[in-house]
Amino acid sequence: MLYTKKQLEEIIENAILNLKFPDQPKELYQPMVYAMSSTAKRVRPVLMLMTCDMLEGDIQEALNPAIGIEIFHNFTLLHDDIMDNAPIRRSRKTVHEKWNKNIAMLSGDALFIYAVQLFKDVRKDILPKVLEVFTENAIIVCEGQQIDMNFEKSDNISINDYLKMIESKTAALLGCCLQIGALIADAADDTSNKLFDFGKNLGIGFQLKDDLLDIYGNQERFGKKSGGDIIADKKTFLLLKAKELADKKTLIELDNLFSKNHIKEDEKIQGVKNIYDHLNIEAITQKEIDKHFDFAVSSLNKVSVNESRKKELKLFVQNLVTREN
Amino acid sequence: MLYTKKQLEEIIENAILNLKFPDQPKELYQPMVYAMSSTAKRVRPVLMLMTCDMLEGDIQEALNPAIGIEIFHNFTLLHDDIMDNAPIRRSRKTVHEKWNKNIAMLSGDALFIYAVQLFKDVRKDILPKVLEVFTENAIIVCEGQQIDMNFEKSDNISINDYLKMIESKTAALLGCCLQIGALIADAADDTSNKLFDFGKNLGIGFQLKDDLLDIYGNQERFGKKSGGDIIADKKTFLLLKAKELADKKTLIELDNLFSKNHIKEDEKIQGVKNIYDHLNIEAITQKEIDKHFDFAVSSLNKVSVNESRKKELKLFVQNLVTREN
Repeated sequence: MLYTKKQLEEIIENAILNLKFPDQPKELYQPMVYAMSSTAKRVRPVLMLMTCDMLEGDIQEALNPAIGIEIFHNFTLLHDDIMDNAPIRRSRKTVHEKWNKNIAMLSGDALFIYAVQLFKDVRKDILPKVLEVFTENAIIVCEGQQIDMNFEKSDNISINDYLKMIESKTAALLGCCLQIGALIADAADDTSNKLFDFGKNLGIGFQLKDDLLDIYGNQERFGKKSGGDIIADKKTFLLLKAKELADKKTLIELDNLFSKNHIKEDEKIQGVKNIYDHLNIEAITQKEIDKHFDFAVSSLNKVSVNESRKKELKLFVQNLVTREN
Repeated sequence: MLYTKKQLEEIIENAILNLKFPDQPKELYQPMVYAMSSTAKRVRPVLMLMTCDMLEGDIQEALNPAIGIEIFHNFTLLHDDIMDNAPIRRSRKTVHEKWNKNIAMLSGDALFIYAVQLFKDVRKDILPKVLEVFTENAIIVCEGQQIDMNFEKSDNISINDYLKMIESKTAALLGCCLQIGALIADAADDTSNKLFDFGKNLGIGFQLKDDLLDIYGNQERFGKKSGGDIIADKKTFLLLKAKELADKKTLIELDNLFSKNHIKEDEKIQGVKNIYDHLNIEAITQKEIDKHFDFAVSSLNKVSVNESRKKELKLFVQNLVTREN
């Protein structure tokens, strides 16, 4: 059958609710339960199941690794939030804020082990290949996080550097979800590789959209404070593009907004946003997003499966394109 | 054939030397190379290969998971050292001291992924079971670390609590090594379980010996400063036993040594050691160690394999019993 996104989300939420964590030691397990119980979009497991389903695979076979990927993703968030000193995640306190850094680090480690554990039930004939795809991309995620941290200390980041970083930090894991979904459906390598590319470009578009929504999004629905990236001095696509396009005077203005320590948060956000507006950054970013979503769809178009079976994945892309939170 | 411990160590060191880590980002990979290049005893991979060899398995099949376990072990050390604020590990700066905490956390994460990657080449028919044993015990290691951190804030730890903690934090992974070695040699569950018990008791004895050597060991060869556990206020078997056996006056003396902030390190160590000597703690600890090593050997004795093939494992235990560093 062809499941809808909503049906898949329900299957995934149920599976996550049914995850059994022991009670003790509670300092280890309570943060894990907390991390997994957030109102996340579950994009990664949905994509894995949807791909498997599109290729007429059995989504029940893909369910454990799909939850494994979601757990892995949450492990990376726990650790990234420590590294970035982030206080809020999905409108709630981050684990290291609610407990402490040691607890966030260790419960993150344990989440990762749970993720690996969920892979062990993958069909034996494809288990080695699935583990290979998972671990290769998991390492790329770590590389992306390191490159992102290096960016904090660098003043010389090109748009290309940035796109490469988000490809590693975010997009590789989305590609991996599609590829594993395809492998479980017994797809040929050619197909699973095309679907990796689909996921990768979807991921780049997805992250750029995140950058855009931070300042041009609907604040309440997005679940983060508007302008958070600006306050955190994050070198997003928007900022790097603005720096690339700004004339000398505007560049000095922009640098001033980021170097003044005493400036009020609201003033900083408004000042940067004025420059973005002046340089037409919203439209330029949207164009870059569309480009990657178009790449994604063109990879999907090359997959030899009945067009009607691609419906849900195409709808998925459409929703990412138009999302406002 | 039956490999000697020395031969197995060479095979393992070579395999570790041949691990290929990418060059970039160097902040991620250099700490990983550093962590894996220490002069460690490689107890865990040696035990896995030795068990596989004893049961006439092919040690080449066990080599990748053996290195995987060693990498996993080093990942836990990187993270534990952050949590414990430890400056020195095996006579060298810890990774978070040489670089920083974020780098130590992330390169630890990446080490863990490499560890999992090395498991993927295990024979397909036993891969799910091997992954199950590995992940179950890996989670127990995290539980042990959390319990250990909880001990720091507790004044009411029994010897039993302590033995349970080191069983989780240290011994479970040693048991896991033996069990996986046995699984790769196609041993029956009964045999692999007995070998898990062997490894577990070996691990408990091993950790108690570590506690003992911290204060009664040969300082230079042990590679840590003598009395480090006392300086770090660690609740070791020795301290907990001393508290159990001390009369009221001695207990107050002991508590004073640990609560005074201005006391010199050498004085604190000497003061605590005097109390240990007075209470005969060295001999009592040695007796507890012998008990667990005896348990270990009795599990090994129950394994149905020609006595001559058990020679290397028995020698291994003997060396742990008598080691002075």
